[in-house]
Amino acid sequence: MTDFALNKLVIIGVGLIGGSFAMALRKAGMVKFIVGLGRNKENLQRALSLGVIDSIADDPASAVLDADLVMLAMPVGQTANIMAKIAPYLESKTILTDVGSTKQDVIVAAQSYLSDNLKNFVPGHPIAGAELSGVAAAQADLFRNKHLILTPLAQTATLAINQVIKCWQACDAQISQMRADEHDRILAATSHLPHILAFTLMNYLRNNSENKPDNLLRFAGSGFRDFTRIASSSPEMWRDICLANREALLTQIDAYKTSLTSLQKELTNNDADALEKAFTEARTVRESWLKNKI
Amino acid sequence: MTDFALNKLVIIGVGLIGGSFAMALRKAGMVKFIVGLGRNKENLQRALSLGVIDSIADDPASAVLDADLVMLAMPVGQTANIMAKIAPYLESKTILTDVGSTKQDVIVAAQSYLSDNLKNFVPGHPIAGAELSGVAAAQADLFRNKHLILTPLAQTATLAINQVIKCWQACDAQISQMRADEHDRILAATSHLPHILAFTLMNYLRNNSENKPDNLLRFAGSGFRDFTRIASSSPEMWRDICLANREALLTQIDAYKTSLTSLQKELTNNDADALEKAFTEARTVRESWLKNKI
Repeated sequence: MTDFALNKLVIIGVGLIGGSFAMALRKAGMVKFIVGLGRNKENLQRALSLGVIDSIADDPASAVLDADLVMLAMPVGQTANIMAKIAPYLESKTILTDVGSTKQDVIVAAQSYLSDNLKNFVPGHPIAGAELSGVAAAQADLFRNKHLILTPLAQTATLAINQVIKCWQACDAQISQMRADEHDRILAATSHLPHILAFTLMNYLRNNSENKPDNLLRFAGSGFRDFTRIASSSPEMWRDICLANREALLTQIDAYKTSLTSLQKELTNNDADALEKAFTEARTVRESWLKNKI
Repeated sequence: MTDFALNKLVIIGVGLIGGSFAMALRKAGMVKFIVGLGRNKENLQRALSLGVIDSIADDPASAVLDADLVMLAMPVGQTANIMAKIAPYLESKTILTDVGSTKQDVIVAAQSYLSDNLKNFVPGHPIAGAELSGVAAAQADLFRNKHLILTPLAQTATLAINQVIKCWQACDAQISQMRADEHDRILAATSHLPHILAFTLMNYLRNNSENKPDNLLRFAGSGFRDFTRIASSSPEMWRDICLANREALLTQIDAYKTSLTSLQKELTNNDADALEKAFTEARTVRESWLKNKI
């Protein structure tokens, strides 16, 4: 049992992430009552019937009334809009956190709309997801042994940070803290760039003029399946992430193209040694990453 | 039981693919005696002790003596060398096949070195593999429900093709036939290009000047793991594949970069609709591929 419990938790956007967070906290005995708010009524009804939430709120005002913690778990593109809607009703005790895949844009929105409650806002990002979406895919152990990055503002109160940390500890997440710009730069390289590369490959094959996609893809194997798994991710979510982290991502794409061109030159020159060295180094970095990661 | 059995099967290169082929044929009761030949003595000893092969050949001459079927399963770069070595000892009954990931280069080598036995040569490529290598990773069901492409020459005898087909049927593979150039063009797009993209991403992150790889990769998640799985593939094998299919691959890389640049422009222009459309189409093509594939 824990010394800390929430009387009322509000989940805005009860999808894979929001739903899993609710399930983990309930399982840990850390929450008494969970309210869901969202655009998709059918999904909310399912969350209710699955027992992920205890009630569906009709509007932002009643949702956040007397809340201890409000979790923003809708697509990043709606952050500003939702913050503006709930801000007038937030109480001084109410802590606010989010799970957006980009952090600087969320902080900019918070600075515009949450000025009175900035001390209670703890931006966060769990690095756990799947190409699945919706509450039906949610699970209490989604965050177990996964990274969770918090990027508190200078104004964020320590008390608020500690309470959000306790929630993520209950999810068995591995918690780190860093600056929002560092977070966005790192994720641009290790998450946003690979998504762009995978989406682009699928579209490239779709539009391939020489071969019909069916004929091309008929012979694609398991390597292709895994490489493109992230291309099945939510288009709306990834549109928002790309736009929110545009500058960092554009820089990463440019730099990646330079790397690709350099390998292409080695291939053009039939430079067997350089190719083998490049592939060996790539494998070595990956193996070492796999070995050391949690 | 089958009406067709091999008295002597020779596997040159008893790794993941060659070993799995041997195991599948033995399991199907299609082979009486299996001889292994290769560079790596330790691996051959393991193949022997695992029962994948019945004997280790000392040299190419004794290996292929009286053989019914010789399977070339070493890295593509060694094809010409091995063909030259075994050619003088091949008997008129001996059928020769291979599993190289590229086919035009294998055919060019065959035309140079196997002129007397060209009618018995059946080039093949099973689209099954893994980032694992060596006989320890071999398994009898590796090819089950996987594609196997044959690219026979105009000179290849129907009898030889049919015997090789029977072997792959015993592996439960899905067998197709096409021209070697078509094979190489298709695989350049769906296999070789993704490998290049994954290898390049790992190297790009390794050489990233802004962030140390450890700090970058520490927060990489399961999407990254799957996207880069193929970057753990054998560097030697992929060096050979890239060089063997250089022209087609260079064309694919160029065209891919053009696609990437086009997406980059949409991002630069903050074109939310175009990005969402691109991501939606990518996901749709992938979902439809997953649904229709065997």
